[in-house]
Amino acid sequence: MKNKKDYKIEIMAIGSELLTPYCQDTNSLYLAERLNDIGMEVSHKTIVGDDWDDLVLHIRQAISNADLIIGIGGLGPTRDDRTREAFAAVLQRKLIFKKELLQKIEERFKRRGLSMPAVNKKQAYIIDGAEILENRNGTAPGLWLDTGSKIIILLPGPPHELKPMSESSVWKRLQKFRTDYTARKILKITGLTESKIETLIMDLYPKDSSLRITTLAYPGQIEIHITAHSKESQSQAEEKVQKLEKNILERLKENVFSTSGEELEGVIGRLLKLNTKTLAVAESCTGGFLGHRITNVPGSSDYFLQGVVAYSNEAKINLLGVSSGLIEKHGAVSPRVAEAMAAGIREKARSSFGLAITGIAGPTGGTSEKPVGLIYTALAWDKGTDVTKNRFLGNRETIKFQSSQKALDMVRRHLLKNQKIKE
Amino acid sequence: MKNKKDYKIEIMAIGSELLTPYCQDTNSLYLAERLNDIGMEVSHKTIVGDDWDDLVLHIRQAISNADLIIGIGGLGPTRDDRTREAFAAVLQRKLIFKKELLQKIEERFKRRGLSMPAVNKKQAYIIDGAEILENRNGTAPGLWLDTGSKIIILLPGPPHELKPMSESSVWKRLQKFRTDYTARKILKITGLTESKIETLIMDLYPKDSSLRITTLAYPGQIEIHITAHSKESQSQAEEKVQKLEKNILERLKENVFSTSGEELEGVIGRLLKLNTKTLAVAESCTGGFLGHRITNVPGSSDYFLQGVVAYSNEAKINLLGVSSGLIEKHGAVSPRVAEAMAAGIREKARSSFGLAITGIAGPTGGTSEKPVGLIYTALAWDKGTDVTKNRFLGNRETIKFQSSQKALDMVRRHLLKNQKIKE
Repeated sequence: MKNKKDYKIEIMAIGSELLTPYCQDTNSLYLAERLNDIGMEVSHKTIVGDDWDDLVLHIRQAISNADLIIGIGGLGPTRDDRTREAFAAVLQRKLIFKKELLQKIEERFKRRGLSMPAVNKKQAYIIDGAEILENRNGTAPGLWLDTGSKIIILLPGPPHELKPMSESSVWKRLQKFRTDYTARKILKITGLTESKIETLIMDLYPKDSSLRITTLAYPGQIEIHITAHSKESQSQAEEKVQKLEKNILERLKENVFSTSGEELEGVIGRLLKLNTKTLAVAESCTGGFLGHRITNVPGSSDYFLQGVVAYSNEAKINLLGVSSGLIEKHGAVSPRVAEAMAAGIREKARSSFGLAITGIAGPTGGTSEKPVGLIYTALAWDKGTDVTKNRFLGNRETIKFQSSQKALDMVRRHLLKNQKIKE
Repeated sequence: MKNKKDYKIEIMAIGSELLTPYCQDTNSLYLAERLNDIGMEVSHKTIVGDDWDDLVLHIRQAISNADLIIGIGGLGPTRDDRTREAFAAVLQRKLIFKKELLQKIEERFKRRGLSMPAVNKKQAYIIDGAEILENRNGTAPGLWLDTGSKIIILLPGPPHELKPMSESSVWKRLQKFRTDYTARKILKITGLTESKIETLIMDLYPKDSSLRITTLAYPGQIEIHITAHSKESQSQAEEKVQKLEKNILERLKENVFSTSGEELEGVIGRLLKLNTKTLAVAESCTGGFLGHRITNVPGSSDYFLQGVVAYSNEAKINLLGVSSGLIEKHGAVSPRVAEAMAAGIREKARSSFGLAITGIAGPTGGTSEKPVGLIYTALAWDKGTDVTKNRFLGNRETIKFQSSQKALDMVRRHLLKNQKIKE
């Protein structure tokens, strides 16, 4: 058996619709997850259309590159479905007619009160030497072919056929190729740039190739994915992950807001609940997005009392009690107005915390003094207020996200620092 | 020039995260659409991880298979980002340091009040012979390399960097490879089910293979994509689309809210502006999502005055003036409370329209009498109120979307019917 790094697994999704703007292969996410579960990793994914020459070319390359190839789709009855034929051609094997397969397909139609269209007959042919994987949810049988040096698995494209077929026929068989155990963890971070994180943890990048860090950066949020493998046991893999996680946490400290996959709005929801605190929000440029995120958490009505979208100055004055003099003197986009909004909504809602955002989301409305992306976020609590000044880059949507992220993070950091009940 | 079928285009998405169960390439959908617009079709998509040998192998095969290769991702500052290096290695070209590129990257950090971390320096290297594609939204520059026989385009992975870069630097340059003309139109529809639409337009499905209809159904919104090709001219392709569009519009009438790609919030924004009307919203279960959508439209401050997220009954009473008796008698999720919320916010904000949503977004909080997905939307104007009862299916997120869609559509239909200034 090859060692894991050298055991290459390729997922090949077949169908011209997958090359259009309207349709995407999603089966490979499921397959990757189940492969990971048994310690196997996908090395490559390829998506190819129905064109015969393209199909043959990419099957040839897949068989040359990989040890295990999972082909998806193109097993149907139409003229465009040529996966069987193309694999047979590349492998120089014949297609063999299977009478019992034809009977099953015919029975399937009969059960629905239909007679089998002639085109479906081609689904009763299999590649010479392949085993049939039964399809309980469609007419296209799957195929399992072990050539001695390669394993080729062909599965039907519709997820409701592919998944049950894989569950009943594929994973058990692949168990024996398990070369190791895999553990995985995702750390979510806000308040540090990608490069800052890189600098802080650079020397922690594992030299051990069985342990890996992948960093994903979004505006306002960075994710560190840790993956560990073990030849011995699941618990050894988990231990490796935990050790590295602990080291990273020591460096990045409270900037890591989640190690369980939870989003920031979920984290602050849990902290608010733990401390029996309530929250109300006042938004200007985010226009409701902050409230939307907070209320994406089921059960948020336990701690979220109300929100106000004070888009106009009038609304800031009437709904939040911000003084018109303050707006005149400093402008609606200013630290003082942000604080007044936070204090105002807290008072109106009689909540433990008031959280406010004011700024310029763009693309218009910016000036050289107050440019697009200038955002103030403020938090008010019983003993004071806090305000941050930010200059976010991006489009309206990403500026809205970063603003809400910063605001939510103020609540989180405040609770971590000041409240008695931590996690 | 090769003919269209023989001009092979490969999209190569690079990054180990794209081989995990958690992450998927979506950039290729956008790229496929814009390529289609200029008459080019994607022949193959490939997704490869950060492993050096894999990367080099698949770049080598891509360059051998295709005439145009668009590589996505792996241009960042981290150790995993090796797209530049791998393409340079396969092409046997050097990486060249560009001082002006380094300055731009440094300036970008400076604008945010940060100093550039040392790791970002590698982003100032380009493949010998390549042209730089400017990145206005991130530090990773794109590259355009014409080797004489192949064109290689390298783009950054984050969509908010990739899209603006492609729009400003890629499509114009690719125009010259155009083999035919494509016209496209998207009709967006709300208020009809997919099967109802299917029944209404079934006989309009074109027999001509150069004209195509694709229907995409989302909760709360159906899209009909019409695509036409012409060997002759752009105007011939457009004509084909227009003829079919006209026929479909005659069948689906005012249920089509957009033929320009515009979202519903954009449509009502335009209608409100045209009629110099203003809007204020009161949300319960959507938690701010309605305000968020309305304010996603740049310039929405012209007509959107304010919003209130009245999650608690107390907030409905205090912020919207809903009577506590009404809530006691009918419950917070009721047509009467929805109407009172709409009238209440209209009065508070002194806006032309008040728009309200109350309901149960789930997954918890439902009863047999008031199940998850029961949503009332109400519109108040100077002469009355209107209310709708809906039973939406789906998860919290899709129920929130459908609720906001229904509410926005009430404004649209009201304006179409009652206002003097139409389009």
